[in-house]
Amino acid sequence: MSPMRNFNEDNITQAVLDRMIACTDPRTRKISEALVRHLHAFVKEIEPTEAEWSRAIAFLTDTGQMCSDTRQEFILLSDTLGVSMLVDAINHRFNGDATQTTVLGPFYVEEAADLQSGANISREPGGMPLIVEGTVEDAHGNGIANAMIETWHADGSGMYDVQRATGKSALDMRARFRTDANGRFWYRSVVPAAYPIPDDGPVGKMLDAQGRHPFRPAHVHFKLSAPGYETIVTHVFIDDDPYLDSDVVFGVKDALITKLLKIDGHVSPGGHEVAPNTMLLTYRFVLPSQS
Amino acid sequence: MSPMRNFNEDNITQAVLDRMIACTDPRTRKISEALVRHLHAFVKEIEPTEAEWSRAIAFLTDTGQMCSDTRQEFILLSDTLGVSMLVDAINHRFNGDATQTTVLGPFYVEEAADLQSGANISREPGGMPLIVEGTVEDAHGNGIANAMIETWHADGSGMYDVQRATGKSALDMRARFRTDANGRFWYRSVVPAAYPIPDDGPVGKMLDAQGRHPFRPAHVHFKLSAPGYETIVTHVFIDDDPYLDSDVVFGVKDALITKLLKIDGHVSPGGHEVAPNTMLLTYRFVLPSQS
Ligand SMILES: [Fe+2]
Ligand SMILES: [Fe+2]
Repeated sequence: MSPMRNFNEDNITQAVLDRMIACTDPRTRKISEALVRHLHAFVKEIEPTEAEWSRAIAFLTDTGQMCSDTRQEFILLSDTLGVSMLVDAINHRFNGDATQTTVLGPFYVEEAADLQSGANISREPGGMPLIVEGTVEDAHGNGIANAMIETWHADGSGMYDVQRATGKSALDMRARFRTDANGRFWYRSVVPAAYPIPDDGPVGKMLDAQGRHPFRPAHVHFKLSAPGYETIVTHVFIDDDPYLDSDVVFGVKDALITKLLKIDGHVSPGGHEVAPNTMLLTYRFVLPSQS
Repeated sequence: MSPMRNFNEDNITQAVLDRMIACTDPRTRKISEALVRHLHAFVKEIEPTEAEWSRAIAFLTDTGQMCSDTRQEFILLSDTLGVSMLVDAINHRFNGDATQTTVLGPFYVEEAADLQSGANISREPGGMPLIVEGTVEDAHGNGIANAMIETWHADGSGMYDVQRATGKSALDMRARFRTDANGRFWYRSVVPAAYPIPDDGPVGKMLDAQGRHPFRPAHVHFKLSAPGYETIVTHVFIDDDPYLDSDVVFGVKDALITKLLKIDGHVSPGGHEVAPNTMLLTYRFVLPSQS
């Protein structure tokens, strides 16, 4: 037991740990203790001045106050410090043929319209025409019927709907689909562009101070779920993007990169009529069985 | 150099560190790198579920959104995790005869009235009468003339002015004084009580989950400064308080505890006329010379 007064650099960490003695939930205690140990180790390593401590308090406060219904600055902070990808890696260790996972990102919205395959999910004209044709399969290559696909992406200028306006009525370039009996789904939209994460807040200032750009390579988000299978949150990235090797949130995996195909004529490989110059994004998603 | 894609538990920490390569300010780089290493080590140790990660994001967001002009929830978090005392210890290693330092606490306000010694700083009747008689000296025991004393404290129910009302006009039980030619100052007020730190926010919920009470033992805050000397931020604690061994912010040091003396008659030891039953708090502050 450490002393109960006269705390200094040598005894304060243990004193804070001892204070948790009446914590009844083992998980809360484990997390609290680890937090105190690692946080104190960080402070002891950098030996902040009192002015630096004040700046850290102000940074955290500003980050919290930047959050709103359409902006989650602490998720941006987690993403840009690689914490989100680390948590994703820890929680998705199953390997084999399953589609690889990546961060949810700051632009996921729970509510989105349930649409039928073939719908155009981009109401505002905002980029080159795109058709997405995908399948959702199990580990044996069998299509999963009635799987839910949530998809969302930026427009051809790299803007998400929530950055263009606020409110539910403005939702755009995001929708929910269901696979058909063979595990197939398809929809129309526009080709998304690379974009900077919102960088007019504390996280943008941090990136700037760290000498980092705020860009993510162009991608389409997918969240895939079906009863009996693990839910997969992932993106499909577009080949040849200049930011593939410096994604500000560390989300890129080679297995998630695909080449857009320019469709010759007006019928897609999946047999759907398309406008001239439509680009095709196709991907075969594999869901692992629930363990 | 780590790979630039395909991040996993083993390579992501180095990948984030490598991303700081263009950071031009060495101190920013050192702090950023240490933050990433310790934060990732914390995450790897506890292996949070995605739900736990979401709760952490929500906790930090709520903490930021609880902050206002009169409430600094991130300082409360720093205080209750022992970080503030650790930063204080790192920044005040000089020893010898100097008065020991402790946390600033969440109730410091920069603006306070400049008053003459002898003033009563408690406008609202809120506790037993108190007289504070102190000296500010150098390490050789010589009084420091014209030193500035900033002082603030809670009332007899453990409430600070900023908890009773908002706005500058409501400032109470806080003031600035100057020492006389012999380093002496004195003022009248009320005896402060032990108090819980504000616990109706995220930090209060955290303390509750950790099985901790939110109380601080009764004390009076002092911030002492004079040209040529180090500024000292400290408290004087009142002997016999039940929370001296469990101060929620780890601020108690034996050398800062004093016994209140009940004044017999109506003249204080310093020669000032007092009301019946006035309590005396006296302390000899010693400022270290600036190095
Ligand atoms: Fe995105
Ligand atoms: Fe206090």
